[in-house]
Amino acid sequence: MYLASDNIGPALPEVMDALVAANTGHAAPYGADEVTTRATTALRDLFDAPQAAVHLVATGTAANCLALATLSQPWQAITCTPLAHILEDECHAPEFFTGGARLNPVGQAGDKMTVLELDAALSALPQGVVHSSQRGPVALTSVTERGQVYTLDELGALCDVAKAHGLAVHLDGARFANAVAALRCSPAQMTHELGIDALSFGATKNGCLGVEAVIFFDPAKAWELDLRRKRAGHLFSKHRYLAAQMEAYVTGDLWLDAARRANAKAASLVAGLREVPGFTLVAEPQANMIFATLPRATHKRLFAAGAYYYIWEGDLEGDDPDEPLLMRLVCDWSIPEADLDRFIATAKG
Amino acid sequence: MYLASDNIGPALPEVMDALVAANTGHAAPYGADEVTTRATTALRDLFDAPQAAVHLVATGTAANCLALATLSQPWQAITCTPLAHILEDECHAPEFFTGGARLNPVGQAGDKMTVLELDAALSALPQGVVHSSQRGPVALTSVTERGQVYTLDELGALCDVAKAHGLAVHLDGARFANAVAALRCSPAQMTHELGIDALSFGATKNGCLGVEAVIFFDPAKAWELDLRRKRAGHLFSKHRYLAAQMEAYVTGDLWLDAARRANAKAASLVAGLREVPGFTLVAEPQANMIFATLPRATHKRLFAAGAYYYIWEGDLEGDDPDEPLLMRLVCDWSIPEADLDRFIATAKG
Amino acid sequence: MYLASDNIGPALPEVMDALVAANTGHAAPYGADEVTTRATTALRDLFDAPQAAVHLVATGTAANCLALATLSQPWQAITCTPLAHILEDECHAPEFFTGGARLNPVGQAGDKMTVLELDAALSALPQGVVHSSQRGPVALTSVTERGQVYTLDELGALCDVAKAHGLAVHLDGARFANAVAALRCSPAQMTHELGIDALSFGATKNGCLGVEAVIFFDPAKAWELDLRRKRAGHLFSKHRYLAAQMEAYVTGDLWLDAARRANAKAASLVAGLREVPGFTLVAEPQANMIFATLPRATHKRLFAAGAYYYIWEGDLEGDDPDEPLLMRLVCDWSIPEADLDRFIATAKG
Amino acid sequence: MYLASDNIGPALPEVMDALVAANTGHAAPYGADEVTTRATTALRDLFDAPQAAVHLVATGTAANCLALATLSQPWQAITCTPLAHILEDECHAPEFFTGGARLNPVGQAGDKMTVLELDAALSALPQGVVHSSQRGPVALTSVTERGQVYTLDELGALCDVAKAHGLAVHLDGARFANAVAALRCSPAQMTHELGIDALSFGATKNGCLGVEAVIFFDPAKAWELDLRRKRAGHLFSKHRYLAAQMEAYVTGDLWLDAARRANAKAASLVAGLREVPGFTLVAEPQANMIFATLPRATHKRLFAAGAYYYIWEGDLEGDDPDEPLLMRLVCDWSIPEADLDRFIATAKG
Repeated sequence: MYLASDNIGPALPEVMDALVAANTGHAAPYGADEVTTRATTALRDLFDAPQAAVHLVATGTAANCLALATLSQPWQAITCTPLAHILEDECHAPEFFTGGARLNPVGQAGDKMTVLELDAALSALPQGVVHSSQRGPVALTSVTERGQVYTLDELGALCDVAKAHGLAVHLDGARFANAVAALRCSPAQMTHELGIDALSFGATKNGCLGVEAVIFFDPAKAWELDLRRKRAGHLFSKHRYLAAQMEAYVTGDLWLDAARRANAKAASLVAGLREVPGFTLVAEPQANMIFATLPRATHKRLFAAGAYYYIWEGDLEGDDPDEPLLMRLVCDWSIPEADLDRFIATAKG
Repeated sequence: MYLASDNIGPALPEVMDALVAANTGHAAPYGADEVTTRATTALRDLFDAPQAAVHLVATGTAANCLALATLSQPWQAITCTPLAHILEDECHAPEFFTGGARLNPVGQAGDKMTVLELDAALSALPQGVVHSSQRGPVALTSVTERGQVYTLDELGALCDVAKAHGLAVHLDGARFANAVAALRCSPAQMTHELGIDALSFGATKNGCLGVEAVIFFDPAKAWELDLRRKRAGHLFSKHRYLAAQMEAYVTGDLWLDAARRANAKAASLVAGLREVPGFTLVAEPQANMIFATLPRATHKRLFAAGAYYYIWEGDLEGDDPDEPLLMRLVCDWSIPEADLDRFIATAKG
Repeated sequence: MYLASDNIGPALPEVMDALVAANTGHAAPYGADEVTTRATTALRDLFDAPQAAVHLVATGTAANCLALATLSQPWQAITCTPLAHILEDECHAPEFFTGGARLNPVGQAGDKMTVLELDAALSALPQGVVHSSQRGPVALTSVTERGQVYTLDELGALCDVAKAHGLAVHLDGARFANAVAALRCSPAQMTHELGIDALSFGATKNGCLGVEAVIFFDPAKAWELDLRRKRAGHLFSKHRYLAAQMEAYVTGDLWLDAARRANAKAASLVAGLREVPGFTLVAEPQANMIFATLPRATHKRLFAAGAYYYIWEGDLEGDDPDEPLLMRLVCDWSIPEADLDRFIATAKG
Repeated sequence: MYLASDNIGPALPEVMDALVAANTGHAAPYGADEVTTRATTALRDLFDAPQAAVHLVATGTAANCLALATLSQPWQAITCTPLAHILEDECHAPEFFTGGARLNPVGQAGDKMTVLELDAALSALPQGVVHSSQRGPVALTSVTERGQVYTLDELGALCDVAKAHGLAVHLDGARFANAVAALRCSPAQMTHELGIDALSFGATKNGCLGVEAVIFFDPAKAWELDLRRKRAGHLFSKHRYLAAQMEAYVTGDLWLDAARRANAKAASLVAGLREVPGFTLVAEPQANMIFATLPRATHKRLFAAGAYYYIWEGDLEGDDPDEPLLMRLVCDWSIPEADLDRFIATAKG
């Protein structure tokens, strides 16, 4: 009953098979190989963006930070939500890669930024005042840290605000596939058609071993990205092993199928948990993450039965068996249905 | 006839098998998994260094730069040779990771630094003068960029000089296995027993997909390394896939066997080439790299026959068929003997 | 009627005289001169801190950032208030000097941080979690940006909280003299006796041309500060001209007299303004800054009469003549009493 | 007999008078004052560059590094001579301000770079290779560290080489006035008319307390310079005190007169020393610096008589009284003729 994250499951068999298949003969290093060419082309096709600059890296931190560093100056503020991964979970990697840009948390309710909040926050940064943080790129995330998915209208409106201020937009798509699966849109519709300038196209969480694509829809900064990736130690010499993962991932809708399975499992898990006494959702899950409360006693029963997930707020140790504690449950494609059934059954007690 | 580098061949079958084997079930992320524990323990055992801090990363640039950043201050000079990889081939990654430390090239002849050169260079950096570069760590490489292997006496004497100046020593061991194979010593004998403080233990070039270990024999800075690795985007969430490679690599002398095979192939290739007219070695090869000249016409014949390697100095295009052009040939474990034979035969004409 | 800031008035005559007096003969450069020795000694005496490391620089940004960079690591959070100068007014200078440390704004009400807020904020930074901001130094300011002065008890209690978390404390004393004048304490009582580790001892705003002292009460990091100051371009070659200002400033209580005069003028101004219709203080002024509202019509009358100060919140242009708009008024030692009288008279209408 | 440097003498009386004169009344901060406007305009007039961006700072390190950081990217090499101040004497300030650009020392003989050396060095930096240092700005210095002055032809030819490679040129003019005095040209002729893009116009060494101008002849990056200056703590709040120095300095040829006096004194000193036994020039002095040898015994006699200058190479302590030791002598405008006479007489013995 492993529901702690989507970074704890195995890689998709097709991805591993591709890795094994790539392990024959010699290949030019540093991305000059044929597998990389194929993977890059496949990504451009997937996004209907034949000119896009595509760079593969192995971690999401690298993808996000290389993109943001390329889009910003060290004296600029990068606007994001207070819960954004780049703010909360990357040990100042954005500051490191950008040379000292500042993350500017915006948004009061939940972890979606609203158009009004964004506009107000950008307007609050003075222009032409040398003492202040200068306006810089807007960093959005979907699926958000709390499992929400921006609608296309919401995303497009946020992009419009950024553009009205002359600013670029980056999308952290660590769970991009889950968002696309939820929205039933195309990758293009969720990105450059709305005004997204750069995307971290995550693959690790959705079934790869470790590969992400940094996609710039305007290729003008492709060479700068090349240099930044190398300088940060993120250019793989045996690049085919990144590329093979990515090629398999985007071939034949594998990426989307895996995300649909993950989302469906989360939906199925929620459906079962609705019948559990004390189960209360923070918000309706929209992708593969569930934020909800259960009574302390229920949590204890689940952990005792071997469940593995995170208590997000509150202390498992405590006297009141009925006190609700917030949990996060994350499903990936690999979680067995039987595990979900057992989790629900255990929760019911 | 792929002799361009040891980063173009496939991964060792045992390494790939381990990766496949690791791809089952769930595993705690970010290095909290059992595979990582086993790999880390195996490395400590291999080095007879039970207290050592061991961090896995995916690239050699990351390994070198995380180590050097941890050992230095931004106002210090890192002494290395003029041909050092960190100076010539990492797009200012050392400057980036260290926040502006300077690489201080030392050494006139070839790419080995001598004790006298090192002592003179360190002494030339003034002490207590705020305007100058301050003395910082010494960065050695073995196998060197030109294929030479420091003897244990040489390495030890360089460490002694560094220690006499109160400085730490880092060893770039991108081809550490090839050096150990050449010296027929133990890993401990080539490192902490001589005074090496930190090692980049390379595995990628010698048969992995992409994994290196940063080893600090004194664990005092382990937590700083944790933070630096995360901040630079080099902490893998699905860490077991780094660890599985490394575990397989150091199990049952696989790493050493692969290096011995690579070195032996280079020796065999040299032996054959000695009979080729115009073949002149820059220096006797000591590991798996050959730097030697062949006449232009011979190079042209080789390339026409499909050989893949680098002309290191000189221009393949030119009139004089007899002009000697410097080439680099690198053997890894995977090069077929038949390819070597055909290379020699083609060179003979 | 120049009340915009304490950086717009002239330098104290004694300071200018000292500068002229220093301009004879030759002097060793970079702080090796006798004026610097005398100024440094005078500062140590003033603070009853014979071991303190004292470094002179020309700007407050440099003083604050050199101190904070020396006290922190790039992966740490520097806790300050949301209104702190280092956060709001230095164009990311702290991020630049520290190599990417993050400013962690704490405090809801006004611009004083409370003990509870500080303790909660530090406790909220997880320990031992590599993904998070790590706990770093606490940065306090007194006089605060909104003109408040921490009591010795308040400052001491904040230092105690920092120490309980094992953290250093820096005090931005851009208006240190005004705070000491308000508290009627000694410099030692307001700093190292409470647990302040490092101080930016401001002199520019209180009557110098441009000089600040970075004082570390523990001299262990004196050499690192030397290097950081040089590396940032803040070591003056003709250092005597910084030192002469500082020596004059701390001789014979000049610094304190100037601050007392400034504070007294602010008190006198407030006393007069209390009789102005619509005058409302945000808080009782404690030093030389007044934050208060006046009706729009009153502001317009003042500006028309040649007053020079900042509207802090609200728009001078607007229809309602009675709408209160927040202003900041700052007095330095040099403001003529006649100007204050005229300001009050004009405000009364 | 103070000949150690041109940073040990007093400021010009006219400069100090201007400082005193500026110390009346109130002035807008941060460069919005009238003195700054006048000084900036005077500099643009002096250079016949009405569009130039002019920024004042207090130190040469700041001027050089702000200019270079604005002209370069962190992955670029800044080409300079092996003796350049930015390389040898600024404690890695260039690396700090640029975020990790590398200084690329070029030139074998003396401290002037030749056209052939520059072209070869730039050509040696590979283009389009992500692993390498990328080509960046060329940093020249005149007067050089060894007292030489580039002719206009030399400077122009170096600029042409840089332009042919598409690179910008910065001139470190810490002793710009001495160079112009030596060349009897106009400031424009020595800078933008040749292709110099940015200049550090030094004033401190030639008679100010501490002020330098960063001049960009193309103002496109003026705002970036504003931001960089503030972020580095180099924007003065009481900016009039920088500006007043500079205004006086460039009024009525004061700057040029002071430099002419300094150069003339150096010429006079050399003329006298030519008659001293064992006096050997390294090169004919061209401005206000003399590099020459004297026998050890002569040095001892001079120091015993109270002379203050630097032995540049060699050890004053030693047995052989006849051994030649290299000295540096620097004259500024303020050195009394009597001191020079006494120096010569003492040297003669």
